[in-house]
Amino acid sequence: MDVKSPEEEHPVKTYGWAARDSSGVLSPFKFSRRATGDDDMRFKVLYCGICHTDLHFIKNDWGFSTYPLVPGHEIVGEVTEVGRKVTKFKIGDKVGVGCLVGSCGSCEGCSENLENYCPKMILTYANTYHDRTTTYGGYSNEMVVSERFAIRFPENLPLDGGAPLLCAGITVYSPLKYFGLNKPGLHVGVVGLGGLGHLGVKFAKAFGAKVTVISTSPSKKDEAINHLGADSFLVSRDPDQMQAATCTMDGIIDTVSAVHTIMPLINLLKFHGKLVMVGAPEKPLELEVLPLLIGRKTVTGSSIGGLKETQEMIDFAAEHNITADIEVIPIDYVNTAMERLGKADVRYRFVIDIANSLNAA
Amino acid sequence: MDVKSPEEEHPVKTYGWAARDSSGVLSPFKFSRRATGDDDMRFKVLYCGICHTDLHFIKNDWGFSTYPLVPGHEIVGEVTEVGRKVTKFKIGDKVGVGCLVGSCGSCEGCSENLENYCPKMILTYANTYHDRTTTYGGYSNEMVVSERFAIRFPENLPLDGGAPLLCAGITVYSPLKYFGLNKPGLHVGVVGLGGLGHLGVKFAKAFGAKVTVISTSPSKKDEAINHLGADSFLVSRDPDQMQAATCTMDGIIDTVSAVHTIMPLINLLKFHGKLVMVGAPEKPLELEVLPLLIGRKTVTGSSIGGLKETQEMIDFAAEHNITADIEVIPIDYVNTAMERLGKADVRYRFVIDIANSLNAA
Repeated sequence: MDVKSPEEEHPVKTYGWAARDSSGVLSPFKFSRRATGDDDMRFKVLYCGICHTDLHFIKNDWGFSTYPLVPGHEIVGEVTEVGRKVTKFKIGDKVGVGCLVGSCGSCEGCSENLENYCPKMILTYANTYHDRTTTYGGYSNEMVVSERFAIRFPENLPLDGGAPLLCAGITVYSPLKYFGLNKPGLHVGVVGLGGLGHLGVKFAKAFGAKVTVISTSPSKKDEAINHLGADSFLVSRDPDQMQAATCTMDGIIDTVSAVHTIMPLINLLKFHGKLVMVGAPEKPLELEVLPLLIGRKTVTGSSIGGLKETQEMIDFAAEHNITADIEVIPIDYVNTAMERLGKADVRYRFVIDIANSLNAA
Repeated sequence: MDVKSPEEEHPVKTYGWAARDSSGVLSPFKFSRRATGDDDMRFKVLYCGICHTDLHFIKNDWGFSTYPLVPGHEIVGEVTEVGRKVTKFKIGDKVGVGCLVGSCGSCEGCSENLENYCPKMILTYANTYHDRTTTYGGYSNEMVVSERFAIRFPENLPLDGGAPLLCAGITVYSPLKYFGLNKPGLHVGVVGLGGLGHLGVKFAKAFGAKVTVISTSPSKKDEAINHLGADSFLVSRDPDQMQAATCTMDGIIDTVSAVHTIMPLINLLKFHGKLVMVGAPEKPLELEVLPLLIGRKTVTGSSIGGLKETQEMIDFAAEHNITADIEVIPIDYVNTAMERLGKADVRYRFVIDIANSLNAA
């Protein structure tokens, strides 16, 4: 079998920035995209958010990265070509692509619009597409995607601040809704105030919740309350504060990926309360069972969202003026951005201005 | 303040068997019960099941036992007197009392018929009643209980085999129902084949589930399938069997109180599957978070049930001919029974024939 180079594999010549190995450094990369199929559309990438997952993939933290690797799954662009069977989009539309570009289409998840739980879901980058070619993400000038995996961006949603909603936004929106934490008047905790957490506060507030941010850093209190609109703030390392809040929360969205103790969080839950993990610590956490029994409490997890729900989330965000707080950067700042991201030195998301900074050179 | 002896505290002279200290030995004990209040009824105890909790309390395993301690919270009897406001019961009725004899009546749990999650619930023994006196359980000749905490026993439900339903039965019935595992055609796993587990199999089968017993002991396979009617059996220590059953179960009821690993169980769950703990291991378990995220899976817990649901469970059991498999013993065998229970040497529940073996002497 002919092994083609990424540059020669497909007819559409494209370019972007790629990691060549696990050193963590990105550099310019020429590759190709498939021709626009009947159900596909091609779009010019305008903005792409930088997700912490990008950093994990670049460095092969999870052991299954393949190189060259073009990251990026918070992608917003403008449609330039549509396949002959495309019905939802037309040239000039603003569209978004998140973490997925394909799925099996026939499993239980797919049949329930939960492509995000399809065992054969195809990730937007570093994965293998239906045609057996490698997927490349949004740190690139152009993409080709099935219309089923594209999201319509409403007119009034800013494209740069809206981009991170496609991963970070849906990751917190979906569990708030699925676990019934979207009813007005509930008390919702958000653990960790980063890319996911700050959007968790915004969506929970928009759903009408009383929102408490739980963080190890007392320095984030002012930001959480005065800037993001949280109702209260708990320093998780302060036992008195935590004790005083025992049994007060209906649910907690835990966005922390570092290994941490969850039992103090479970103690914050009312009976029937739910602790929803959306970050995945690398090592097992300690779980005491008795507190679950006594209050019929739940520890659960959630991972991004299906395409239908992602569209719903984007429409909800547009309606409620929710965007990510971002720092817009040119592509040649991306390696510095990754370093800063590794130190959590960003409020709260980097977004690459692809259209104005990425050159074919 | 006068400190009265248990024998003198109340007007009704009663007797039973009590533990005097944490040595684990029970012996005859004279005490007293309150007069039958307006909302109370008095009943002659006929049978009382022996729950593993009784053994924990006798030995003060949890550190909050008080002595003398009369155990027993799977109690069936016949009404001998009713208070003037009692409307649900009359003299001669067969009644059951489970783990609770009181609650606050006004909290969220109580207002939703979930007295079992009331923070001020009053346990049937070794607890303090509204009148500040100690509660004594069913290893005794008579009891006085508020009618709100009594269950009507249907005519056709055997009293001896029905007694364990009041704790062991409701402990597995309630989560099957609450977590939606009571729909026909679902695949339900039951971990551990003891007092709780064998009733878990029976209720899950009655709900129409395909039931798989998961156990460390291959020797239980025949019993599980041919006697209890389980559809299949998994040896949890056999990685091949466990691997073959990956992602096949809608829910699992885990009845094991010993420290054990739950990740292989979580792997058995389909997406959206629920692992429900009804036993409480003394030490924390290890929880890997990523498998929860990937399938929106849940680890949760459940503790007995409210009075309304316990009545529903008893009626359901009567309708479906569900009773516990029991070994009926006289009261003077109770210390031997406790020893055997400590070694899991019983299929599957001891029930004390109180009426025919307990004497005032």
